[in-house]
Amino acid sequence: MILKAKTVKESIIETNDIVHPSDVNAYGFVFGGHLVSLMDKTACMAAFRHCESKVTTVSVDGIHFLRPAPVGTMLTIHASVNRAFRTSMEIGLRVTAWLPGKPNEDICRAYMTFVAIDENGKPKEVPAIIPETEEDKRRYNNAEIRRAARLELREKLLSK
Amino acid sequence: MILKAKTVKESIIETNDIVHPSDVNAYGFVFGGHLVSLMDKTACMAAFRHCESKVTTVSVDGIHFLRPAPVGTMLTIHASVNRAFRTSMEIGLRVTAWLPGKPNEDICRAYMTFVAIDENGKPKEVPAIIPETEEDKRRYNNAEIRRAARLELREKLLSK
Amino acid sequence: MILKAKTVKESIIETNDIVHPSDVNAYGFVFGGHLVSLMDKTACMAAFRHCESKVTTVSVDGIHFLRPAPVGTMLTIHASVNRAFRTSMEIGLRVTAWLPGKPNEDICRAYMTFVAIDENGKPKEVPAIIPETEEDKRRYNNAEIRRAARLELREKLLSK
Amino acid sequence: MILKAKTVKESIIETNDIVHPSDVNAYGFVFGGHLVSLMDKTACMAAFRHCESKVTTVSVDGIHFLRPAPVGTMLTIHASVNRAFRTSMEIGLRVTAWLPGKPNEDICRAYMTFVAIDENGKPKEVPAIIPETEEDKRRYNNAEIRRAARLELREKLLSK
Amino acid sequence: MILKAKTVKESIIETNDIVHPSDVNAYGFVFGGHLVSLMDKTACMAAFRHCESKVTTVSVDGIHFLRPAPVGTMLTIHASVNRAFRTSMEIGLRVTAWLPGKPNEDICRAYMTFVAIDENGKPKEVPAIIPETEEDKRRYNNAEIRRAARLELREKLLSK
Amino acid sequence: MILKAKTVKESIIETNDIVHPSDVNAYGFVFGGHLVSLMDKTACMAAFRHCESKVTTVSVDGIHFLRPAPVGTMLTIHASVNRAFRTSMEIGLRVTAWLPGKPNEDICRAYMTFVAIDENGKPKEVPAIIPETEEDKRRYNNAEIRRAARLELREKLLSK
Repeated sequence: MILKAKTVKESIIETNDIVHPSDVNAYGFVFGGHLVSLMDKTACMAAFRHCESKVTTVSVDGIHFLRPAPVGTMLTIHASVNRAFRTSMEIGLRVTAWLPGKPNEDICRAYMTFVAIDENGKPKEVPAIIPETEEDKRRYNNAEIRRAARLELREKLLSK
Repeated sequence: MILKAKTVKESIIETNDIVHPSDVNAYGFVFGGHLVSLMDKTACMAAFRHCESKVTTVSVDGIHFLRPAPVGTMLTIHASVNRAFRTSMEIGLRVTAWLPGKPNEDICRAYMTFVAIDENGKPKEVPAIIPETEEDKRRYNNAEIRRAARLELREKLLSK
Repeated sequence: MILKAKTVKESIIETNDIVHPSDVNAYGFVFGGHLVSLMDKTACMAAFRHCESKVTTVSVDGIHFLRPAPVGTMLTIHASVNRAFRTSMEIGLRVTAWLPGKPNEDICRAYMTFVAIDENGKPKEVPAIIPETEEDKRRYNNAEIRRAARLELREKLLSK
Repeated sequence: MILKAKTVKESIIETNDIVHPSDVNAYGFVFGGHLVSLMDKTACMAAFRHCESKVTTVSVDGIHFLRPAPVGTMLTIHASVNRAFRTSMEIGLRVTAWLPGKPNEDICRAYMTFVAIDENGKPKEVPAIIPETEEDKRRYNNAEIRRAARLELREKLLSK
Repeated sequence: MILKAKTVKESIIETNDIVHPSDVNAYGFVFGGHLVSLMDKTACMAAFRHCESKVTTVSVDGIHFLRPAPVGTMLTIHASVNRAFRTSMEIGLRVTAWLPGKPNEDICRAYMTFVAIDENGKPKEVPAIIPETEEDKRRYNNAEIRRAARLELREKLLSK
Repeated sequence: MILKAKTVKESIIETNDIVHPSDVNAYGFVFGGHLVSLMDKTACMAAFRHCESKVTTVSVDGIHFLRPAPVGTMLTIHASVNRAFRTSMEIGLRVTAWLPGKPNEDICRAYMTFVAIDENGKPKEVPAIIPETEEDKRRYNNAEIRRAARLELREKLLSK
């Protein structure tokens, strides 16, 4: 049984965290691996909410680290389903950083692909997504452009 | 002072780990965030060895999770510099899994981009890379194809 | 300089997490210490947002564990400022758990007190809070009742 | 079968730890969530020893953070059963900090309530406690005062 | 200034812990590395108490794992100074495991050597130790036998 | 069925890591317990590869900490089977540290003993080891000298 189509809004997940000394790399800024762990969990929850079934990460399609975040920074990780394909979904992620007396800053953007899996571990169909806002629609269209670019790149690399 | 060109071989880093219960997700397989942490550290060391200076992750250009790895699996993470650009390097990663009585299996492939940074946190030039083997050369060429594809995709998305 | 009064809404922080095997106790349910760590960080961020300055936990005034949460549960931690006193704030916390095909369930409720601290580590005045909704007002009033009860209890214990 | 009554002394548990950089918050002092994790485990062991059966935390009735503890501090966590009720126990906790050349300092005091649970996860009767020393008796009496205060507070809040 | 001689009793440190799923290896028993971390911290505190100055581990002279400990086991780590030499101390460690309805069992024994270090990171003299009980004296004598054996072994290996 | 003899080379495992702030002790150098965890896992994998069956640590026969390693150090842990006995193996470990612009330095050497275990948790025979190089042979011989010394020491301590 496939669930009926859902809006982007229903899949939005926000996670917040404060950078502690245990989260930083040798230079005192949030460790990439720590940030990706937080993002993977957040994206997973967005996909989990959309599908209401087991989901698993199939690929990280791009993570862009824009600015470093020192100890004491408050991190906000925002994830939602950009587009649902047959058994997979592109999740879009945005991380902002905040320190008292400073404006919020984007520090990371990422795209990840998840698939829904059934009781036997096989991919299963996911609900369609309904983009409502202009922003939802822009992301919905861009997800397809990114997917096409990935397929085209794969062809190019295989033809070598 | 820029270091002289180096071979791919000089940057190869191998890391090994056994999957413990503290490393798995809710379904009992190695957690993506844990694996990415190991890969980020390993890629960072390959870039660190190549540049002999501070390096930082600027992007994760693609991670493909091919197979799940249960508790007890021995993981081998292999990283090396695929290509050096002016201040950045593409690092290629391959993760294989081993369990007694079974053949090694590729479970993950990834590409990450690092930049070298100077004492003031500014990007600095990195040594050129010398691809020696046929495999080195294939990766060297593919790194450029991936870079071109990323730039082309960015243009497409911006022109919307 | 004291910031002007803020609404409860401005301090609301939501954090989400999935229970992994590394987060559970010997019986397979989320470890109390892990949950309190998540709650302490979330409450800290609500106080941090309200004061826009350093804050520190002075007391945990009560945590009620209502139901256990097994591996795979999605946890939502919700924190906001219930009431601001001169240099301290009561933060209210609510944790809900979700598993596919089941309704959301409250699994934990808590109250914590934070103080704002200045550059020298001394307590400093915090902005007043503006309760807007009926729920905001109920919590605002109850925070005072809890505070009075704590003071009364302390007197009783000291008089022994 | 209910175990026979036991003395407070039989349930005393002491745990010691040194504050490492991985245990501190953004200001360099022991993170509240880390300290509570240590306390929850220590209290759990005091209850475990008293009941000789599975136990689980039902509430944290109050934690008072008195002083911050920097990296390098030796922490001593002391827990014992203050009073046993029918299926529950109040555990009292005290944390002292030590640095070479300085006197021991109390940095935290807490009360937690645990219940014993049987094979089916249902609450089961716990052994009675025998307070021996004057200190044991003071804590035994205060546990009842705290319990009465909690019940009275709950009534007040419900009657609103 | 060297502190005056101290008894073994003054350096005794006991630490307790419950084995959680995050602490076990791929077979479900407490991970050796986790147990050694607990022992290293406990031994460090025994040396820290004896010297009242910075101390550092110079060697682990032997750790014998006697029995595995599954999730849920309560571990008691007991450390004390066996013998003080000029700038170093042998610390003896014993780990016992407890599960409800079972007798305490020794699961690990270890010897570690620590040195005291001054403000410049140089070894400094440590207080003499006063063995009081028969057990203290047995350990005091055995520490010298172990040290002689280590020196003799080193000679044998170097002469090859 | 016992596997046929294997060369030392087939069991060599190398693990690399960068020291992060979460890995250091109160003085800012890599925590002994962290280093031993990395070494225990690496040694375990060398034994795992040699036996192709479950293995477990029976003893740590000596760990010598030669130099401290600060945050940012790249650690290389090198493990291989020195000698195989009937059901046990001595694993030799060497840890080197590297910082840009400095030579590699040995910071730790260790010996650990593992046994292979069958499906019922009983020790089982391990493959013989074939030392090929001069270095392999030196280690092979020294492993026997260390074993003899351990047995002699045990006798001496028991005869007291």
